[in-house]
Amino acid sequence: MLYIVGLGLGDERDITLRGLEAIRRCTKVYMEAYTSLLSFGLASDGLSTLEKLYGKSITVSDREAVEEKADDMLLEARDSDVAFLVVGDPFGATTHTDLVVRAKKLGVDVKVVHNASVMNAIGVCGLQLYRYGETVSIPFFTDTWRPDSFYEKIKRNRSLRLHTLCLLDIRVKEPTLESLCRGKKVYEPPRFMTINTAIEQLLEVEQNNNESVCGEDTPCVGLARVGCEDQKIVAGSMKQLLDVEFGPPLHCLVIIGDTHPLEEEMLEFYRVGRDDRAWGRIPPACRRGRGRCGQRR
Amino acid sequence: MLYIVGLGLGDERDITLRGLEAIRRCTKVYMEAYTSLLSFGLASDGLSTLEKLYGKSITVSDREAVEEKADDMLLEARDSDVAFLVVGDPFGATTHTDLVVRAKKLGVDVKVVHNASVMNAIGVCGLQLYRYGETVSIPFFTDTWRPDSFYEKIKRNRSLRLHTLCLLDIRVKEPTLESLCRGKKVYEPPRFMTINTAIEQLLEVEQNNNESVCGEDTPCVGLARVGCEDQKIVAGSMKQLLDVEFGPPLHCLVIIGDTHPLEEEMLEFYRVGRDDRAWGRIPPACRRGRGRCGQRR
Repeated sequence: MLYIVGLGLGDERDITLRGLEAIRRCTKVYMEAYTSLLSFGLASDGLSTLEKLYGKSITVSDREAVEEKADDMLLEARDSDVAFLVVGDPFGATTHTDLVVRAKKLGVDVKVVHNASVMNAIGVCGLQLYRYGETVSIPFFTDTWRPDSFYEKIKRNRSLRLHTLCLLDIRVKEPTLESLCRGKKVYEPPRFMTINTAIEQLLEVEQNNNESVCGEDTPCVGLARVGCEDQKIVAGSMKQLLDVEFGPPLHCLVIIGDTHPLEEEMLEFYRVGRDDRAWGRIPPACRRGRGRCGQRR
Repeated sequence: MLYIVGLGLGDERDITLRGLEAIRRCTKVYMEAYTSLLSFGLASDGLSTLEKLYGKSITVSDREAVEEKADDMLLEARDSDVAFLVVGDPFGATTHTDLVVRAKKLGVDVKVVHNASVMNAIGVCGLQLYRYGETVSIPFFTDTWRPDSFYEKIKRNRSLRLHTLCLLDIRVKEPTLESLCRGKKVYEPPRFMTINTAIEQLLEVEQNNNESVCGEDTPCVGLARVGCEDQKIVAGSMKQLLDVEFGPPLHCLVIIGDTHPLEEEMLEFYRVGRDDRAWGRIPPACRRGRGRCGQRR
């Protein structure tokens, strides 16, 4: 049996009892690192905290390991119980759907343990989930590659007066172009896109296309570290959010469509300039800094 | 402090460690019943199972209690730690956003513990979450009230080739019209919409509007009890799904847009007529029937 276990968004305490039971039943535990490295702070003691909680040692799998060596893991899962841990919910990333398909083809039973992901936890900003249009991804622009397919999607959502969730680029263990040419991979340092960079890129694309999809006055919500103890949520115009320091990853951005009065009331708590410590305040009992978020505070 | 704790979708084991810690810290524990009655099977021993796990007694709050007496709970939360438990994620329902707004206005600190909800767990069917358009709700038709605003939304999603998640009506503790006229409330028995009824209503609306938004051949996925041990997922045309018995609540329906090859591969596992026991098979260790889903198997 392969258990694909969602770990949620915050720290080690965001696992469910069902997930914890599954892991403790397994003979081997893998964790995907490529979408979660930044959340987990694996460079610090995040991994050992998890191992202690689970009573198991964890093998961290980067993208290459999962995509190239998945079959080894799946063959193990045919004969014994194996857990594959994923930050957020197992179906937040296409890669994990692919893993399920491969497992089924090999005749390996799969069991999924769900958890919160940004796709539903984004509801915390007060904008109702059923008022969102298509989700978009904003990739890092480079000197030679400035893809802007997100612009058309945001345009459609805005014409329907819907909110748009923008997921921002994460680059973990990306080989440098130079090293690929030489045939021996050397990796770039991990990078994540900030809300500020996302807005800069959006404004640049708007300037190039000039279709009034967004601009400095477009109302948005910036969310950093959703679901973590130190999450930060600020609502304001694109121009206002450009100057906000959101802190460590991960960041995402919502471009606001038409709002209902209740949505407006919630957004008011997050308005630029308000004391955001008043909302989502951390109670003393939780301040022990045990989590992967706490480590970055 | 008011802790709004998501319980996830399956049974009592779907709570997170963070949620469990919060509840155990609280002097009073409330649980909303109006969106969760059917999931929890409160008529059976579901409630006592939760109380035993939490080591706390739980006050079940129906819609009226939450909407009319919320201030009492919030005043308690100003002086002590109070938990409010919600099936799924706290922000799946507008009512809970309203609760947060009321809490903030009274100066009550709020802390949210996220969990899986249908809005992200729907990813289990293999259709990628970022390929969904606006979510729609399909209400029960009555002899005199046949609202079809969902039709326009589905039409838009389909013209954009996006998937549509249809949330199906739940009627818990609804006063009868007759009793409202008499001034003394008598409640209808709880009802939930099946996938079959949803499709019948969709086909009726299509027949009336005749805009080729959907029809008997439209590919869909029906999902019952997502995240529960006995979840059932079947992919097929509307006509095919009309004949499928999905069993106990809750049900939802996805109308499929354009698909990628990976999405097709996943859907293949759920195709009508396949032995769906092969997928999501329940391992013996989980068959103890402790959960609210188990009770209905």
